[in-house]
Amino acid sequence: MPIDVDKAHAAELPPMTYELTRDRVILYALGVGAVPKDDELVFVYENGLKVLPTFGVVPPFPALMEVMNVPGVDINPIMILHGEQYLEVRKHPIPTEGTLTSKPRIANIFDKGKGALMELEVDTEDQDGNVIFHNRFATFVRGEGGFGGEKGPPPGNEPPDREPDEVVEETTLHRQAAIYRLSGDYNPLHIDPQFAAMAGYDRPIIHGLCTFGFVGRAVLRTYCENDPEKFKSIKVRFSRPAWPGDTIVTEMWKVEDNKLIIRAKTKERPEEYILTNGAVELNV
Amino acid sequence: MPIDVDKAHAAELPPMTYELTRDRVILYALGVGAVPKDDELVFVYENGLKVLPTFGVVPPFPALMEVMNVPGVDINPIMILHGEQYLEVRKHPIPTEGTLTSKPRIANIFDKGKGALMELEVDTEDQDGNVIFHNRFATFVRGEGGFGGEKGPPPGNEPPDREPDEVVEETTLHRQAAIYRLSGDYNPLHIDPQFAAMAGYDRPIIHGLCTFGFVGRAVLRTYCENDPEKFKSIKVRFSRPAWPGDTIVTEMWKVEDNKLIIRAKTKERPEEYILTNGAVELNV
Repeated sequence: MPIDVDKAHAAELPPMTYELTRDRVILYALGVGAVPKDDELVFVYENGLKVLPTFGVVPPFPALMEVMNVPGVDINPIMILHGEQYLEVRKHPIPTEGTLTSKPRIANIFDKGKGALMELEVDTEDQDGNVIFHNRFATFVRGEGGFGGEKGPPPGNEPPDREPDEVVEETTLHRQAAIYRLSGDYNPLHIDPQFAAMAGYDRPIIHGLCTFGFVGRAVLRTYCENDPEKFKSIKVRFSRPAWPGDTIVTEMWKVEDNKLIIRAKTKERPEEYILTNGAVELNV
Repeated sequence: MPIDVDKAHAAELPPMTYELTRDRVILYALGVGAVPKDDELVFVYENGLKVLPTFGVVPPFPALMEVMNVPGVDINPIMILHGEQYLEVRKHPIPTEGTLTSKPRIANIFDKGKGALMELEVDTEDQDGNVIFHNRFATFVRGEGGFGGEKGPPPGNEPPDREPDEVVEETTLHRQAAIYRLSGDYNPLHIDPQFAAMAGYDRPIIHGLCTFGFVGRAVLRTYCENDPEKFKSIKVRFSRPAWPGDTIVTEMWKVEDNKLIIRAKTKERPEEYILTNGAVELNV
């Protein structure tokens, strides 16, 4: 079997460093649609710069690429889908400069029948060892299920049976993925028409983590007055693809003082949800 | 007198290095409006990456900031305007990686009456000492004229007395300057509303060199089939400001087999030309 669960769990994954710069913080914000206007100016201008909370997925992102190199894991990269993302900001304010170190570990390998769900947890620390970001990247590996493992918990975070409390619509640029990829996800699926065709798409799709950033901004604007310190965590499931140029519609329900249920679709295909089973925790 | 012409001419300016990376090449292209589509994909995708010729102004750009530090020059930075730009690509193909070294020198200081026109020439070399780019940055220093110097040549490159042979219209993004500035021109005039107001503008203006890039792309597409090797040189005068979101209208006249006269305005203020006295030489 290409995944040896015990061996994978026992694997020591090497830490990885990331040079945090203001330019990278700004480039990320532009990649997820921030504009130099009103109270979003602080996300794209080095004078008074603040970091969008969802930037937290960027420094540890290379760990996701390392999944293929984990001892006990021998899988075809083309069979991998980024299934879910959980991000928690553990320390505010998020720094704009410095060297960050990300420490990955295999947290869970669930047996989903048609595939395996590998959960990679990564703590990202600043130079002083403070954990700034905690991420859980869940990767669905098609064809690797049926090994008799735990099924794992259900995704949860179902929206309440009422209209959303808040809805934010925002149109992505046709060049959105081209900007976003400079934050470190160079998968050609997001820019190369030939590669996208091989994967079965008419044209390159937008990064799931790019739409994740749009959704994070929608929450930040609607419930946090664009103050990153009010944002604690976000979790989503990547359910369907979206395309550069799509208008992302983020639906939000406030279900507790410090908790939102979120979900996103596009205006272009309103019957399909692209991000589901989502939740945001607020610092209140 | 704040400019001591003889002393400035005799000054030795320090060389400066630039780490050329694919990401920087792509970021520049996105900054001047390139999109991941059709035959412009090569300018924003590392697989088969080509360099837009006008990128040549980026590696030596910091030299323009050094003008204030030239011995014999003691001027108020707020009195400086970027007046003209000449760029020649001396060696094709333009590399996408490596360390480039720019060597600036004061070429001319002209007496324009109301001000001084300082011409800074910069050769930019690759690791092997090949000159890749030759630039001439002309800076107008208000209030520093009248020292009895040479007046310098007239700007030239007047359009012929006929309608343009070709016209290209392209709309800039509202966030265009925010993207462009990550290529190294962090002047707050292009992003900070308060700073722009102090300079007398309703809102931040777009970089002259950003519109220069749009104009360069218009020529490259219209007369060079988007092949950078067919592009030899470009010269423009920065006559009026433009704003992010404006639609740039580039007018082109083919006056010789290998020479175009160019000029640009915006759709928003068609009576004002933003780039004038422009010419492009082609490699034919």
